[in-house]
Amino acid sequence: MPHILVVGSLAYDDVQTPYERRRDVLGGAASYFSLAARLYAPVRLMGVVGDDFRESDLERLKKRGVDIAGVERVKGRSFRWLGRYDHDLVTAETINTDLGVFGDWDPEVPAAFTDSEFVFLANILPEIQLRMLEQVRAPVVVALDTMNYWIERKRDALTKVMSRVDIVTINEAEARQFCGTHNVIRAARQILALGPRAVVIKRAEYGALLLTKDRIFWTPAYPLEEVRDPTGAGDAFAGGLLGYLAHSGTVDDRTLCRAVLHGTVCASFAVEQFSVDGIEQADQTGVEARVRELQTLVSA
Amino acid sequence: MPHILVVGSLAYDDVQTPYERRRDVLGGAASYFSLAARLYAPVRLMGVVGDDFRESDLERLKKRGVDIAGVERVKGRSFRWLGRYDHDLVTAETINTDLGVFGDWDPEVPAAFTDSEFVFLANILPEIQLRMLEQVRAPVVVALDTMNYWIERKRDALTKVMSRVDIVTINEAEARQFCGTHNVIRAARQILALGPRAVVIKRAEYGALLLTKDRIFWTPAYPLEEVRDPTGAGDAFAGGLLGYLAHSGTVDDRTLCRAVLHGTVCASFAVEQFSVDGIEQADQTGVEARVRELQTLVSA
Repeated sequence: MPHILVVGSLAYDDVQTPYERRRDVLGGAASYFSLAARLYAPVRLMGVVGDDFRESDLERLKKRGVDIAGVERVKGRSFRWLGRYDHDLVTAETINTDLGVFGDWDPEVPAAFTDSEFVFLANILPEIQLRMLEQVRAPVVVALDTMNYWIERKRDALTKVMSRVDIVTINEAEARQFCGTHNVIRAARQILALGPRAVVIKRAEYGALLLTKDRIFWTPAYPLEEVRDPTGAGDAFAGGLLGYLAHSGTVDDRTLCRAVLHGTVCASFAVEQFSVDGIEQADQTGVEARVRELQTLVSA
Repeated sequence: MPHILVVGSLAYDDVQTPYERRRDVLGGAASYFSLAARLYAPVRLMGVVGDDFRESDLERLKKRGVDIAGVERVKGRSFRWLGRYDHDLVTAETINTDLGVFGDWDPEVPAAFTDSEFVFLANILPEIQLRMLEQVRAPVVVALDTMNYWIERKRDALTKVMSRVDIVTINEAEARQFCGTHNVIRAARQILALGPRAVVIKRAEYGALLLTKDRIFWTPAYPLEEVRDPTGAGDAFAGGLLGYLAHSGTVDDRTLCRAVLHGTVCASFAVEQFSVDGIEQADQTGVEARVRELQTLVSA
């Protein structure tokens, strides 16, 4: 089985919704991604944490089979995010971000990880994404995620790294912002023209749209009557997506479509509970069942 | 073949988008609905127009097979709507509504129309919807549409008529408003609990969600790279939906799902051109081709 390498944040979140508030809960793109991807293939995690990071949280990841040998612990505070969701439980308002040790992180891919075949460059500085990419010897599939912050401040570097990866995953609003069009099909085509073989536009409760040279695929979100914490949905999505590809060993259009279904289902588990609890508790049987339901949902 | 009866507005629209403006173009829920439904079954139209309504516009409907014997012409001005769309081409801002003769319309179903089997009560005063419903002798399927205006001002009457129909079609934002929840699945269940056998939540560019007692079905919108005028999308949708049901003669869940696909495709034709031009030019072959594409879009 090929290995999946993820480079991204490990964080403590303080999350508020109109119904609930949780402080100091495990978060960060790499946590969500790893706990989804481990359902499919072995995961290698690169991240950085401060003195305040609980050993028990690293243990949680380890217990789920995630290889945490690439997690550096350095002096200082861990990345902390304070966010609030409106009653729609879709868009987060960031009240405070404290990058802590993540702000100065200058990672190197450990020698033992350089043979990873599937790579996920989570939402970090595009220059770091590019450098990570160059340190992996012969990746089969590299996927990246990004956010408005980099679109506004690091557009050129982001465009460059997008042109080097195989899959770009991006939120709908960010795709619109990056491409200067409201039409998501046009936006996806613009990003595809940069070089990746696939673009996935994440549309939160409206599902996900996949575009390749020859295929448009759309899946709705898995219908939930209760969403408790949307944090990490996009990263759990990417974990399911890349996990499924790694497990399949191929990246043809058909497999990409199925991978998007798996990503969608992983996201649904993530948002059902606060923090990573939902995706941590998910298992393959549960994922498969929801993938089947998702297919039933759209079959006329 | 059973007959479809539609009761609703015939209007002249003045539509502005960031790219184009068209004045005095044929609009109104009943126009869009009729031009979609006539692709499937004979349509009987009830509406009211003023002295200013062009005979040529009634001819357009007639030429497409719509029975306009139920259109009253009275002294006064026709219904006029002035609306503007933002660059997202989704939500209309109403700049002015002049109900004209439509404001005082007190319709009676013509004797020749009372045997109609399929009935669409377009977005009008709920009390009129209810009265129309009572005048049709033995309807097989009655569907209604509504809007925020009635939700705010005529909630009780609207609730009553919803409880008497078979299908409620409603915009996502209006479903949320009516039900007081952001979650559309919950909103759809609430409306279903009032009595209809099916609820369709229209989600514009995100497609449509169908809920029955035993089934949830979701179709994405037909992916268009250019939307020119979203006016009438919901009514063309209802026309395709009810048209397909009338053509099929059954309303089981499977048929309802397929009807939602047809509604979605009719809406796509409507929004591709200004006014009713797109849906007027659509034909069965074109609709069938897009229904197949829509199914390919979601099949993994």
